[in-house]
Amino acid sequence: MEFTKEIYEYIEQLCKGVKEAESSIANSTLPQRNTALVNIAKALLENKDEILEANKADVENAAKNGVIPTMIDRLTLNEARIKGISDALYELVGLKDVLGMGDVWTRPNGIEIKRVRVPLGVVAIIFEARPNVTVDAAALCIKTGNAVVLRGGKEAINTNRVFIRLMKKALEQAGICPDCLALVDNTSREGASVLMSMRDYIDVLIPRGSAGLIRTVVDNAKMPVIETGAGNCHLYVDRDADIDMAVKVASNAKNQRPSVCNAIETLLVHSSVAKEFLPKFAAISEQFNLDIRGCERTREILVNAKTATEEDYATEYDDYIIAVKVVDSVEEAVKHINKYNTKHSEAIITNNITTAEYFQKNIDAAAVYVNASTRFTDGNEFGFGAEIGISTQKLHARGPMGLEALTTVKYLVSGNGQIR
Amino acid sequence: MEFTKEIYEYIEQLCKGVKEAESSIANSTLPQRNTALVNIAKALLENKDEILEANKADVENAAKNGVIPTMIDRLTLNEARIKGISDALYELVGLKDVLGMGDVWTRPNGIEIKRVRVPLGVVAIIFEARPNVTVDAAALCIKTGNAVVLRGGKEAINTNRVFIRLMKKALEQAGICPDCLALVDNTSREGASVLMSMRDYIDVLIPRGSAGLIRTVVDNAKMPVIETGAGNCHLYVDRDADIDMAVKVASNAKNQRPSVCNAIETLLVHSSVAKEFLPKFAAISEQFNLDIRGCERTREILVNAKTATEEDYATEYDDYIIAVKVVDSVEEAVKHINKYNTKHSEAIITNNITTAEYFQKNIDAAAVYVNASTRFTDGNEFGFGAEIGISTQKLHARGPMGLEALTTVKYLVSGNGQIR
Repeated sequence: MEFTKEIYEYIEQLCKGVKEAESSIANSTLPQRNTALVNIAKALLENKDEILEANKADVENAAKNGVIPTMIDRLTLNEARIKGISDALYELVGLKDVLGMGDVWTRPNGIEIKRVRVPLGVVAIIFEARPNVTVDAAALCIKTGNAVVLRGGKEAINTNRVFIRLMKKALEQAGICPDCLALVDNTSREGASVLMSMRDYIDVLIPRGSAGLIRTVVDNAKMPVIETGAGNCHLYVDRDADIDMAVKVASNAKNQRPSVCNAIETLLVHSSVAKEFLPKFAAISEQFNLDIRGCERTREILVNAKTATEEDYATEYDDYIIAVKVVDSVEEAVKHINKYNTKHSEAIITNNITTAEYFQKNIDAAAVYVNASTRFTDGNEFGFGAEIGISTQKLHARGPMGLEALTTVKYLVSGNGQIR
Repeated sequence: MEFTKEIYEYIEQLCKGVKEAESSIANSTLPQRNTALVNIAKALLENKDEILEANKADVENAAKNGVIPTMIDRLTLNEARIKGISDALYELVGLKDVLGMGDVWTRPNGIEIKRVRVPLGVVAIIFEARPNVTVDAAALCIKTGNAVVLRGGKEAINTNRVFIRLMKKALEQAGICPDCLALVDNTSREGASVLMSMRDYIDVLIPRGSAGLIRTVVDNAKMPVIETGAGNCHLYVDRDADIDMAVKVASNAKNQRPSVCNAIETLLVHSSVAKEFLPKFAAISEQFNLDIRGCERTREILVNAKTATEEDYATEYDDYIIAVKVVDSVEEAVKHINKYNTKHSEAIITNNITTAEYFQKNIDAAAVYVNASTRFTDGNEFGFGAEIGISTQKLHARGPMGLEALTTVKYLVSGNGQIR
């Protein structure tokens, strides 16, 4: 694994193997795929000791290497977490199949056209040291008939090896070729680069993780990518807002779980309500030690607030920090948001129906809220059951992605000798 | 226009201007957009003398510069062709609007979620010297509420300038900001490269033209691309084929219009019917002077056929040339096709239902035909009305793209103070 050539050949061989096995899962039946998922759910519980042991080794290595506590927390498994991963698989089994669904029509010349939903083919997922993603991502691909190449963070490699072995066995027991699933057992940056060049074998690449990871993948991947998760989200408190509602929703959108992508990073407040709203918001946020950074007009009201810079407005903090700006109109708010946002989730608090419509029409984002928290942008909250991620792009899938995002369509045309 | 900096600034300014005008067309009404299309249709006829004069200059320049006759033919307009372009606009007016369509549902917590279809934003189209594409592409974008940046081939620049001026005026007369439409009035390669880097202002880039153009765009564009049109298509004559049907369909798929992407380039024939099928196919193709290049077993039957090389199987001729290979099974045919095809359109001629199903399931392509010509892969033939192109990718749109391919979705969420 030291030389580029070796890494290249290893990864090419691995991806080629998955591509060759693809038809086994693409042509499998729904009962087979569901059986595989149930097999995995059971295997996780039956082999929990082995999983925990491997995970312990990963956690110890991470601690030794000075990995930060929040990352170690994400890396760490325990019985309850394994149970949670297993339970999620049963939920996935219960979801309706999306494959084979479609429309059919007959043209005047007699040809029959069926448009049916089919798997994408080989899906590759690059993610960080979160072992739950290993099972979750593989399971979503299995449910949708896709072969899958996983490349997780190096810190979780021991845990991931156990997961992959159990999942391959589960596939085999369901009559699906185990080569439909592979782990890139090389966690170097070079390995990731090689993987991103495997256009011939991988149909789509999905990065799951930090903004940095996503950026790297979007910039370097040679195959189509589904961009997910970057969330520089805003909440605008309008002149016609119910101030108490605004305080409650703004605090929820910022403080309830600041580390997630659908939390807000900047608060925009109409000048005519800033004096009433801002002190109330600051008061409710005190318990969270929220670091407020404001424009000059904000700092006239909240004298203890730090100064917000251009960089603050462009930053996804994912932390107990918020930028605040006082604006003079909904138009100014919309302009600011469209300049800085990542097209994820944006909200307005207003009782004015015209203002609300203007905001929803002119904001460019996957989800635009009126009088509700941005925290609802989520597959489960939207009622989709499973979620592959939240797409911030406009092509293919936008917003929370359900199972359908892992599929494409195919036209099956039948005739009896028709020509043009 | 000599210096890189000047070209960069010119194109950046142009794209920025279109992005800023985007909301004018995004927020326009359907009657406004349809009025704009009717205005264009009328203006083309009313100003046909000016169009023909500009086009004459383009054609004369092209002839002087040694442009090949088929390209000059595509470049040339006449009264009938202008009438055709104008008529197509009226057809587009008649098509149902796709914007604003969608679903709505309410979650247990009371938030209402609307998923509505919205324009993509700013669409850029890079194409060659076909002036009809200038109007056609702009019109499809206008119908779907998108702002548009057009970059046509240098040979058509005079014609395109007139078209753009007429179309801008037509937009303005319909109350839509004319800056929603722009022509890149720099046809250098450098200009194209700069355009492909304008990720901040362009939401999607669609190349329309030769395989070479599409390849360049896919490799270089920094924004999402919809890949269209490359068509290395095949027809497989199975052991259980109706031979007369096979001859008729194969000849249609190859000889009726070889220059288009849904024509076939390689014929695969089962060994047990090759002796009966190939001489009949060669006979019917004689009138087209078809250049047949075969494998060894083909040449034992068609002794005058040239030898087909690996390169032949990988080539989209778009001409009266065909590669032929004798195979021993449907599995071998499928393997060959999946190795060489461009995921466009593939066909089998067979009366065996099991073989047909195997072929349709295992071929990786946008459209898979049983007993019909691949020439039907087309928006109009499929009944979609308009066609932006034929997507050979799996994400976003696959196969013939109707108006919906120029749109995305947006989630509009309303509540009365809901938080998580």
